[in-house]
Amino acid sequence: MSKLEKLKDLGIVPFKSGPLDSYRSTARFDWITMKITMEGEDKIRYTNKIWKTLELDPEFQHPHRELTIEEKRERTFRQMKRLIEYDALPIDVVMENPVVTNWFVDAMGSYDWSVSTKFNLNRNVFGQSLLSLGSSRHLPFAEKCEILEIAGCFALTELSHGTNTRAMRTTATYDSTTQEFVINTPDFEATKCWVGVLGKTATHAVVYAQLYTEDGKCHGLHSFIVPIRDPNTLRAIPGVVVGDMGKKLGQNGLDNGFVSFNNLRIPREYLLNRNGDVSPDGKYLSPFKDPNKRFGASLGALSSGRVGITSMAITNLKLALAIAVRYSAVRKQFGPTPNKELPVIEYQMQQWRLIPYIAALYALSTMSTMLMKEFTDFALNLVMGVKNAKQADLGKEIHAISSASKPLAGWTARDAIQECREACGGHGYLAVNRFGELRDDNDPNCTYEGDNNVLLQQTSNALLGMTKAVQTGEVVQTPLKSMDFLNDMNSIIKQKFTATTEQQMLDPATSLAAYKWLVVYLCKESSQKLLKEKRQGQDSFTARSNSQVYYCRSLSIAYIEHMTLQVFYDFCCNPSLPKDILTTLRKLCALYGLWSMQKHMATFYQGGYFSGGEPANLVQTTILSLCSDLKQDAVALVDVFAPSDFILNSPIGASDGQLYKNLYGALIQGEGALERPSWWKEFVQKPVKGSRQLAKL
Amino acid sequence: MSKLEKLKDLGIVPFKSGPLDSYRSTARFDWITMKITMEGEDKIRYTNKIWKTLELDPEFQHPHRELTIEEKRERTFRQMKRLIEYDALPIDVVMENPVVTNWFVDAMGSYDWSVSTKFNLNRNVFGQSLLSLGSSRHLPFAEKCEILEIAGCFALTELSHGTNTRAMRTTATYDSTTQEFVINTPDFEATKCWVGVLGKTATHAVVYAQLYTEDGKCHGLHSFIVPIRDPNTLRAIPGVVVGDMGKKLGQNGLDNGFVSFNNLRIPREYLLNRNGDVSPDGKYLSPFKDPNKRFGASLGALSSGRVGITSMAITNLKLALAIAVRYSAVRKQFGPTPNKELPVIEYQMQQWRLIPYIAALYALSTMSTMLMKEFTDFALNLVMGVKNAKQADLGKEIHAISSASKPLAGWTARDAIQECREACGGHGYLAVNRFGELRDDNDPNCTYEGDNNVLLQQTSNALLGMTKAVQTGEVVQTPLKSMDFLNDMNSIIKQKFTATTEQQMLDPATSLAAYKWLVVYLCKESSQKLLKEKRQGQDSFTARSNSQVYYCRSLSIAYIEHMTLQVFYDFCCNPSLPKDILTTLRKLCALYGLWSMQKHMATFYQGGYFSGGEPANLVQTTILSLCSDLKQDAVALVDVFAPSDFILNSPIGASDGQLYKNLYGALIQGEGALERPSWWKEFVQKPVKGSRQLAKL
Repeated sequence: MSKLEKLKDLGIVPFKSGPLDSYRSTARFDWITMKITMEGEDKIRYTNKIWKTLELDPEFQHPHRELTIEEKRERTFRQMKRLIEYDALPIDVVMENPVVTNWFVDAMGSYDWSVSTKFNLNRNVFGQSLLSLGSSRHLPFAEKCEILEIAGCFALTELSHGTNTRAMRTTATYDSTTQEFVINTPDFEATKCWVGVLGKTATHAVVYAQLYTEDGKCHGLHSFIVPIRDPNTLRAIPGVVVGDMGKKLGQNGLDNGFVSFNNLRIPREYLLNRNGDVSPDGKYLSPFKDPNKRFGASLGALSSGRVGITSMAITNLKLALAIAVRYSAVRKQFGPTPNKELPVIEYQMQQWRLIPYIAALYALSTMSTMLMKEFTDFALNLVMGVKNAKQADLGKEIHAISSASKPLAGWTARDAIQECREACGGHGYLAVNRFGELRDDNDPNCTYEGDNNVLLQQTSNALLGMTKAVQTGEVVQTPLKSMDFLNDMNSIIKQKFTATTEQQMLDPATSLAAYKWLVVYLCKESSQKLLKEKRQGQDSFTARSNSQVYYCRSLSIAYIEHMTLQVFYDFCCNPSLPKDILTTLRKLCALYGLWSMQKHMATFYQGGYFSGGEPANLVQTTILSLCSDLKQDAVALVDVFAPSDFILNSPIGASDGQLYKNLYGALIQGEGALERPSWWKEFVQKPVKGSRQLAKL
Repeated sequence: MSKLEKLKDLGIVPFKSGPLDSYRSTARFDWITMKITMEGEDKIRYTNKIWKTLELDPEFQHPHRELTIEEKRERTFRQMKRLIEYDALPIDVVMENPVVTNWFVDAMGSYDWSVSTKFNLNRNVFGQSLLSLGSSRHLPFAEKCEILEIAGCFALTELSHGTNTRAMRTTATYDSTTQEFVINTPDFEATKCWVGVLGKTATHAVVYAQLYTEDGKCHGLHSFIVPIRDPNTLRAIPGVVVGDMGKKLGQNGLDNGFVSFNNLRIPREYLLNRNGDVSPDGKYLSPFKDPNKRFGASLGALSSGRVGITSMAITNLKLALAIAVRYSAVRKQFGPTPNKELPVIEYQMQQWRLIPYIAALYALSTMSTMLMKEFTDFALNLVMGVKNAKQADLGKEIHAISSASKPLAGWTARDAIQECREACGGHGYLAVNRFGELRDDNDPNCTYEGDNNVLLQQTSNALLGMTKAVQTGEVVQTPLKSMDFLNDMNSIIKQKFTATTEQQMLDPATSLAAYKWLVVYLCKESSQKLLKEKRQGQDSFTARSNSQVYYCRSLSIAYIEHMTLQVFYDFCCNPSLPKDILTTLRKLCALYGLWSMQKHMATFYQGGYFSGGEPANLVQTTILSLCSDLKQDAVALVDVFAPSDFILNSPIGASDGQLYKNLYGALIQGEGALERPSWWKEFVQKPVKGSRQLAKL
């Protein structure tokens, strides 16, 4: 196959020649080979197919005027219908390779997160929760959802409770005389809220409620299918008050809603009964003796969210960097002489602001791909009923990883988008260039499926457990090996930083070793801090709360950064990859390691791993020299992950590099841009100065 | 005067009793006394008068439905007219106390930045640029602007040039036959853009253009009054292409515009001729021999922007913190036992996320008030024609300070708003609670009047100059004394961190001493780095560019943090203040110092000021103990700066603390919240799965 045929086969349209040529020509690797290395041909083909479909379909054209929220929601709904008409995510393809669901979510999210999430919530989240929480009698609901005969949503959060899921107060009381559950909202603070798809569309919801039997006993949180709206009219069912949350900071095509129930009766069979059931005569039955275990199992369906969000945040990182790096390679400002202006990417400052995020993108992307694959296998085994020790251990490890990978990816994307926005100056502040949308749409990644800071506690809990095990002589082993180095805790903690040359710093092994020390140090320090708090008489809850800042929180972050670095390093050591690719990946790996380390520099000194000025100097000079070195590869590095121009949808980030032509074109074609204001007569009617009085105090 | 009479006199409405009572009652200082201490009675009275006026006027009611951009712009314009009718910023009051302009900008900005900025650009920026760049013949334009007979704007930035102001390419060529200037845009990349008020409203612009005389000689950048639209019709003047920039990330009530000129002729007298003129027969005349000096003088009018933006960003900090801290004092989640949930502010993590920003607010606010006062005096002297050495030195020092205070305040507000948004979880993501607006409206503070990172170079340039002076034996003295400690450079650099107890850490003198060392260290290191670059053969431009990251940039940030801390510390040492106020301010000062220091901890180790683990431990434990201590004052501390509920406009941040009632009320009263979607029939028309084909690659 010729190179051109190969591109066509992958659905890649060659770039137009233009202002970006010079930086593209200086790249020291083949970007198509890099793309295939990072994503694989199947993903590239599938993704480009989706993107091309959207580009050709009028329903997906970018609106040329501002839409109201109502219009955005209608548009998103119509697009969701189109995706069903395309059967864009066919069941048989997913059955064969479940990761395609993730490709689909990210491909659609690159276009618009609202439609991606709305489709995903209705089909996958609602559907999978029936699958994992319910039984065969509930599957027809999932099938109807898939073709939009009904629309489903997932209702857990209440107005006054989010993170603390167990404290939900909606009730489901069984009535054996009619064999029904009575769903009730005790007061307005227990109103279910934030539910995606519920605001305008959902006809059915999976509702979490405290299950009461007729003896007045509460059996804890269970989930129920609850009808919300009549599918023929979209009017609320009597006994249901359902509404739209209104404008959010972003994702306004998605209709988040709230709902409260006024003694709404549903059939007994609508209880999702995998982890607990009620017999027709009102006896409570459960496979779990311990209600805590049942609760844990019922929340299992949620854990996929964090793995998915990790990937979603990285998708945003790809988009933001493509725009900012291309802009920086074309935008010129100042120069050594008045007549010679330099592209802003030539400046050390601009390199330092952007290039480490490219390294982070490659590192996080590699880690996320691995995590998604492992999680998919795990989830498949879960559905198949596999219950061996390895599966249990894998579940725990993925829980620990994803509880930290979601914060790391969410925050990295948050910071990168903001840095990219600022690095593009005023033009970055123009809505048409898309940073606003990316910022607003990425923002909830730091909140939903668990506030980032709270989630990190899950990871440190796991690490502290492992630390205790190692300290009591156990040998710990985890399926993905992310914690196995803790076995060498006692030797690792004695190590010191020994690199003395930039050459040594360029080897990612240097930062990997430093990270191993850091994780071990924080494991030990956090365990001791916790112990100290308890010795001082604090209860376990307070002791844990008082050990978060500088201890457990830092530990979880260091752990996930280490793991990301390790996975990326292993990936860079694959000898079957072409040499130019390996060389570039190694540099990115070194940069990610050093740049991440830098944030913990004080701790390295504090714990004695660093001493004297030299280690910090080496870290800093090597970061700057890597940034400077990678400058000539930067455009090609973002080309690897950039979607088509139609999808990227940013005049200053277009692949032709015609920054000003594209931007000017967008400006003059803006809605009413060149018209006088419709309210021009307001200008002609002059105010009379001093004709009104300021209020009296 | 009784306390109640005092409140009434100041225009303060007492808080309603409710869920915030408990944290208000634990405060260890009187919040009204603190408010008077921080703001002064005159400012409180003026600000409350403005706020009450807005609250009573239907024109300023918050819209109950989403507005289009066109509607937002009309609304902002109508509000601007109202402010003129109220004569809200009377000339005689401003003449007596020019700082009132700043009170007005911030009071209006607390309500909405679009109307504040639009009013300010038309009246003050346009008006003052005529005053400082033009002569008496131009004053009628300013007078007409004030009553909106015309509307003015300030056009400097072009599509392809922003930060590099000298590189603007619009031309103004003199034609003595008609005694006119011909204003021309050489190509579309020289289109003036981003001009506030230009998008829909401006009839006249101050336009910066390269002045050419008939001999073909270019005399550099000059400014001209250029007619843009017919004031009777708001249609563009022939020869002018003027349009609206379209949607921005925020401030969408303000109409930013672009304009290009097609050989537009304007009278000779429209040249703003203070710093350069052309005689009727075409001779160029200038009081400056050196065109660089003329350019510097002509940009003098811009420097007020950075001082103002410093204050604007701090205003955003006030609003965000009021919302997040009140929310955190009412929102409960988890607790030591299942039946006892704690307000989230009780958690160490939440304290650490929010309380240091309260300290930053008090420190920055004190610094900004001082800076604004000094700048106002300086500007007054400028207009009065004072030209002594003190005035020149003050100008330089304010230039150095404001080029760093704007980045520091802009970024602190940026980070605080984001932290507050996340700290309020999902409810923080709801537009009605206002974090989105604050984030979007604060964002340009990091960009306009100079990108933050680029601006910081102005400060480091000044500091490096001072360093050189000291090193060559000069004694440096600056009017505001912000750099005077550099004289002791050689003894300061030898100092080490000596504190060993938390008691010592609680004294702000400890962090002040550390900061003095830090600034000196970075002055020396940056000078050496620059020298090294030059010795390696780099030209001065490249040498400077290569000395930014870790050197000059860090230096400027350390300098402004030191200065902020010093000003706040001096303020806290005022013995005439009541003891409870002093005690609280001292804690805030200590916290601000330590929390800011923390970001430079690696440098303290790198340069040998810190050694061993103890200094870092002490910084961290003292930060946490101050956060824990100040928790009980936190609500009162944000009450001090919070505007009235109407102005704050955030259900979760209202002063009554009725978080859920306010939020629920807002939800159910949302536009169409409880209605079925207007597009419900779209739901009834079902998609046919697989009826369309995905595109072929």
